[in-house]
Amino acid sequence: MERTQFVIEAAEVESMAKESGLTVLQLLPSVVKTAQKLARPPISKYHVGAVGLCSDGRIFFGVNLEFPGLPLHHSVHAEQFLITNISINGDTHLNYIAVSAAPCGHCRQFLQEIRSASDIQILITSTENEDNQEDIFRPVSYFLPHRFGPDDLLDKDVPLLLEPHHNGLIFKDNLSNPSSNPNNRCNGVADYKEDELKFAALEAANKSHAPYSGCPSGVALMDSKGKIYRGSYVESAAYNPSLGPVQAAMVAYVASGGGDGYEKIVAGVLVEKEGAVVRQEGTAQLLLQSVSPKCDFRVFHCNSISCNCKKPCS
Amino acid sequence: MERTQFVIEAAEVESMAKESGLTVLQLLPSVVKTAQKLARPPISKYHVGAVGLCSDGRIFFGVNLEFPGLPLHHSVHAEQFLITNISINGDTHLNYIAVSAAPCGHCRQFLQEIRSASDIQILITSTENEDNQEDIFRPVSYFLPHRFGPDDLLDKDVPLLLEPHHNGLIFKDNLSNPSSNPNNRCNGVADYKEDELKFAALEAANKSHAPYSGCPSGVALMDSKGKIYRGSYVESAAYNPSLGPVQAAMVAYVASGGGDGYEKIVAGVLVEKEGAVVRQEGTAQLLLQSVSPKCDFRVFHCNSISCNCKKPCS
Ligand SMILES: [Zn+2]
Ligand SMILES: [Zn+2]
Repeated sequence: MERTQFVIEAAEVESMAKESGLTVLQLLPSVVKTAQKLARPPISKYHVGAVGLCSDGRIFFGVNLEFPGLPLHHSVHAEQFLITNISINGDTHLNYIAVSAAPCGHCRQFLQEIRSASDIQILITSTENEDNQEDIFRPVSYFLPHRFGPDDLLDKDVPLLLEPHHNGLIFKDNLSNPSSNPNNRCNGVADYKEDELKFAALEAANKSHAPYSGCPSGVALMDSKGKIYRGSYVESAAYNPSLGPVQAAMVAYVASGGGDGYEKIVAGVLVEKEGAVVRQEGTAQLLLQSVSPKCDFRVFHCNSISCNCKKPCS
Repeated sequence: MERTQFVIEAAEVESMAKESGLTVLQLLPSVVKTAQKLARPPISKYHVGAVGLCSDGRIFFGVNLEFPGLPLHHSVHAEQFLITNISINGDTHLNYIAVSAAPCGHCRQFLQEIRSASDIQILITSTENEDNQEDIFRPVSYFLPHRFGPDDLLDKDVPLLLEPHHNGLIFKDNLSNPSSNPNNRCNGVADYKEDELKFAALEAANKSHAPYSGCPSGVALMDSKGKIYRGSYVESAAYNPSLGPVQAAMVAYVASGGGDGYEKIVAGVLVEKEGAVVRQEGTAQLLLQSVSPKCDFRVFHCNSISCNCKKPCS
């Protein structure tokens, strides 16, 4: 099956299962190979596909992304792509994952940000290293026993990943200096509506999951056709497995299905708090410059008027 | 016990055990709190200590390091610090770890770079979330079942972490342009022996564990007293848990026991391959600028004359 879409709608899932004479749960591992073909791993050439079945019947795809010329922590794993893809497409519960290779520890940790992560069932389709065990679903709690997770650091009422976030951020210059260049021309790179991109990035920052540092951030990217892709920073209780806001926006770009190269990203805006203890600016710029050297990159600062994170908001 | 040293010699370990009426293995968890006090987590304020008992009878300390003003992937976890500290202090086998909190998935993955990682025994001293289970040692294979690791990507004869590495790197300008400024004065920051720092960084790059990308790198830092600290880049099979060369050198700096601030780091040199597919330069500079704004940072490029990694060396 050739496919460039990263979501299979519930009705199509049903008809695919019926055609194959499978249950939906049996169908899930069979689409992993289709997802793998969409991966973009220019460094490792190791294509990983992860597909997730949600409670609304949709199947979501995740693939790994790698970015040459930078340290490897910029990489996005298939499971992280999958969760970000689900997040982009609205509130839903993830119940089952089928993945082409054993999830690494980094991903097992990242998954902990989802409420009741322990109950998500995972099946590894390539089990060649594992003494001919059958393809079976096992809970995340099996893959990461004695987990370190949100429970160790947060109150129970703090929203987790895939739950609604309203970080209450507004632009720092909201009252004193309203942006007044809706058709700003930037460095000859793109003639774009700066305000639209700026507010898209603010919206992404408002959905950012950053309860540990209290430093949410968001990125909006624009391609050469003027289409906008949002990415919300996602923090992990274990810090290092956090997903940067540019990475999240890259997931949106790739998941949009065009299959285009990153060089078509012509503009990017990052919104974060000024002087934040976790600051994305330098790293966001490194990644964008690397994948799309002509991309116009701008940073705008925001303040919290209210915030559902636990940390004091500066 | 007040302590600023990050290694306890075998003879002292023996006498500490004897004094307390404990076996050495019973002693290990009792020094975790001492390690925790040495942690430097200005963002989370969450002090993690990890202590390791090696086959030569020494106990090594590891603590977590966090760096404000940057993304969280710059953080060094206590288990990573511990392994790096062992690596600095010479070839030895790590058999047991006691750690103050459940190891995160990122660390469970990082540990896989050690040969026979699965057999390392881990005890978590804080088990408050775990139904009153006893403090017991469990193997790494319990904490990360169905692991993704070096076996999935490397031949069995490729050296792993804590094994000798000889990457066969020489300076790119080795013949044509020998460095001739042994007492170079840099920006008024430090009057240091550039060559010494440069060759220390090359030495670190030659010990770097980078079998997945074939892009080893090393850093040497110098403090205001002229003391040099080396750090070798350590790659993870799962990419993101890799430890950057500046981070590794920071471990050497902290482990040296001075307790001094990072602002005393006055110069840093990075050695890596030119145009490498995994390039540390931009990120190394971000971190060093952030922790020690006046630090003089330089990059030198190297070539492989021979290499024990699997990838073609450019
Ligand atoms: Zn992973
Ligand atoms: Zn960890």
